[in-house]
Amino acid sequence: MPKQVDHRERRETIARALWRVVEQQGWTRATMREIAREADASLGQVQHYFSSRTAMLVFAMEFASEQTSQRVTRNLDRLGSPPHPRDVLRVTLMEMLPLHPDARATSRMSAAYTLEALHDPQLHEQARLGLHDGRALTERLIRQAITDGHIPADREPAIETNLLLALTGFTPLLDFDVIDPDAALTAIDYYLDKLFACTPQPPER
Amino acid sequence: MPKQVDHRERRETIARALWRVVEQQGWTRATMREIAREADASLGQVQHYFSSRTAMLVFAMEFASEQTSQRVTRNLDRLGSPPHPRDVLRVTLMEMLPLHPDARATSRMSAAYTLEALHDPQLHEQARLGLHDGRALTERLIRQAITDGHIPADREPAIETNLLLALTGFTPLLDFDVIDPDAALTAIDYYLDKLFACTPQPPER
Repeated sequence: MPKQVDHRERRETIARALWRVVEQQGWTRATMREIAREADASLGQVQHYFSSRTAMLVFAMEFASEQTSQRVTRNLDRLGSPPHPRDVLRVTLMEMLPLHPDARATSRMSAAYTLEALHDPQLHEQARLGLHDGRALTERLIRQAITDGHIPADREPAIETNLLLALTGFTPLLDFDVIDPDAALTAIDYYLDKLFACTPQPPER
Repeated sequence: MPKQVDHRERRETIARALWRVVEQQGWTRATMREIAREADASLGQVQHYFSSRTAMLVFAMEFASEQTSQRVTRNLDRLGSPPHPRDVLRVTLMEMLPLHPDARATSRMSAAYTLEALHDPQLHEQARLGLHDGRALTERLIRQAITDGHIPADREPAIETNLLLALTGFTPLLDFDVIDPDAALTAIDYYLDKLFACTPQPPER
């Protein structure tokens, strides 16, 4: 196996070990030593791949975002192409919330990262840009859906974007079993049905 | 001053020091020593009032919840009584989001507490109950608003409750300046206008 691929794979294995430690014990307890134990590696090996706990967190977060995007793409592919904007928003929200084990791991990872980034100048700008880009992408999708007649033309794209992103606030309710995954999905579908409340367009003549 | 009042006051002073450290540096860096420094006290004094970092976090969170409730009550009192259910929901959401310095301090406190509670069996049940009770209170308010004709009768109270609570998801967007406080308030008002979309009731004959 080429050395570079092996290097990347080792880093991903360690990142997954970090996810598991963060999910099961929290970021506070995710020491380099604990992550090494979980990755079945020595502390020296982990330090070879990551110079610091922060460097590892940055990589683990980027990897979590990639994995989340891939899950979204796979789910949309299953629905046939081109995907309807309602499905894109539904699947994206579903993969950002702790509704199943993989999404729970990346959601916990993201919560730990966000809280750490608030106070770490190295992470702050990266976290801000990630949120900013996600918001810009969502707003573009909503504007296009209005143009294409899927969302009523009197909806205000910036406000609708902010409200949709705020729905990630289901996370603590799900994490503490205050509501179950079905209740979150029902609420998301109810919300999206109201947003996409257009009568079907008549066929062009 | 009676000794018990003094004891409570000292604990509140230390809790406020903890809030400031959590807000400015994050929970990871909130050691007993750092909190003592911020409270202008010795480590021994802090340990006299709190047996552990967890005990301090529990008290600081209860105190933050009390302070948030008091801010909500004060804001509602200013609007005249009895308060309209739309105002109750608006003011409560506003005080839960990091929209001004006091609310930011209690919001950061609450985020740190929630993340810690996920993995600490001592805190887990307290956090779950807090979220559960807040949800139950909101659902009662919404059911009453439907009964009183403020919210259309075809709205489903459980779903509306979950969606409203999910709007606390504005927090990271505000914390990282991805949206500004005005944008969050505009979105909340837009959302509440749609929820309270009843024509005024005709006077009883």
